[in-house]
Amino acid sequence: MKFCSQCGAAVALAIPAGDDRHRHVCPSCDTIHYQNPNIIAGCLPLHEDRVLLCKRAIEPRYGYWTLPAGFMENGESTEEGALRESWEEARARMKLDGLYTLFSLPEINQVYMIFKGELTDLDFGPGPESLEVALFTEDEIPWDELAFPVMRKTLEYYFADRKSGNFPVRSEAIYRKRPAGQGQ
Amino acid sequence: MKFCSQCGAAVALAIPAGDDRHRHVCPSCDTIHYQNPNIIAGCLPLHEDRVLLCKRAIEPRYGYWTLPAGFMENGESTEEGALRESWEEARARMKLDGLYTLFSLPEINQVYMIFKGELTDLDFGPGPESLEVALFTEDEIPWDELAFPVMRKTLEYYFADRKSGNFPVRSEAIYRKRPAGQGQ
Repeated sequence: MKFCSQCGAAVALAIPAGDDRHRHVCPSCDTIHYQNPNIIAGCLPLHEDRVLLCKRAIEPRYGYWTLPAGFMENGESTEEGALRESWEEARARMKLDGLYTLFSLPEINQVYMIFKGELTDLDFGPGPESLEVALFTEDEIPWDELAFPVMRKTLEYYFADRKSGNFPVRSEAIYRKRPAGQGQ
Repeated sequence: MKFCSQCGAAVALAIPAGDDRHRHVCPSCDTIHYQNPNIIAGCLPLHEDRVLLCKRAIEPRYGYWTLPAGFMENGESTEEGALRESWEEARARMKLDGLYTLFSLPEINQVYMIFKGELTDLDFGPGPESLEVALFTEDEIPWDELAFPVMRKTLEYYFADRKSGNFPVRSEAIYRKRPAGQGQ
């Protein structure tokens, strides 16, 4: 951010009164421009013993497989965002049964929220952002061609939890760059 | 948003290629300025049969009681944000045991995430944004002086769930303005 989106003046980095961190502030109109994490809402679409995945037709990770997910929009709920993304990417309709995984990615200021749900029909197919959409059993999942760590972890949790039939909400932070000395 | 934060030119509302909704776009440098919901992370701090609440020293809802919560910052996890806010507002330290309530407020583009946790000590007290911090049993809670519907709902869920000892994640969307004809 270089310019104030309210008045067009050049912004400066400063700690506002009562705050404890640097923000982009406008010396002309005094607007403080906060920057905060974004939510990525998605689904784990299920049918019998299989999971629906999409092969990405867009960067990043073109050609890799993912659960349908994308940036939550203003004016919608997290569940509506998850269902909208599933429709846009996979033409998939489902009945959600709750939040399943919650991942914070502090290095890139993203929070993933993946909801578990049952497909209500099998008329799915690739939307404009997907090359292919298909159902996979645990053995069939292309584990080496998954797009993002959050998708791998969600699938790993799911197949582990399925053994017990218990699906507690799984929440964790994921770091790409580990602090020095802490290994991989 | 009136000006491009990258180059300072006046922005326009337009539907970018491949998109389906209006965004603020810059006709000069082509930046698309997405606007997305913000996360408010907070805690339900518990000690024996009591819950910690803060009396707000800031607007909105000055003088009303709330659970400690605030905007999640870049560079932190949702749990870190919840714990930071509890420290800032109530000087409270706790051990979290998971997400408890998740509220979408589509009309104001906010998502509340409240984590349940046990206080690890009773050395709490008002931070700069609180007038007072105290523990309340269910009967003592100032139900008519709660700051926000999400706090009331979290407390209602908690005292109801406490009867069974089961605390599933509660997720729902809250609207202030009901669609016409649907009553209060």
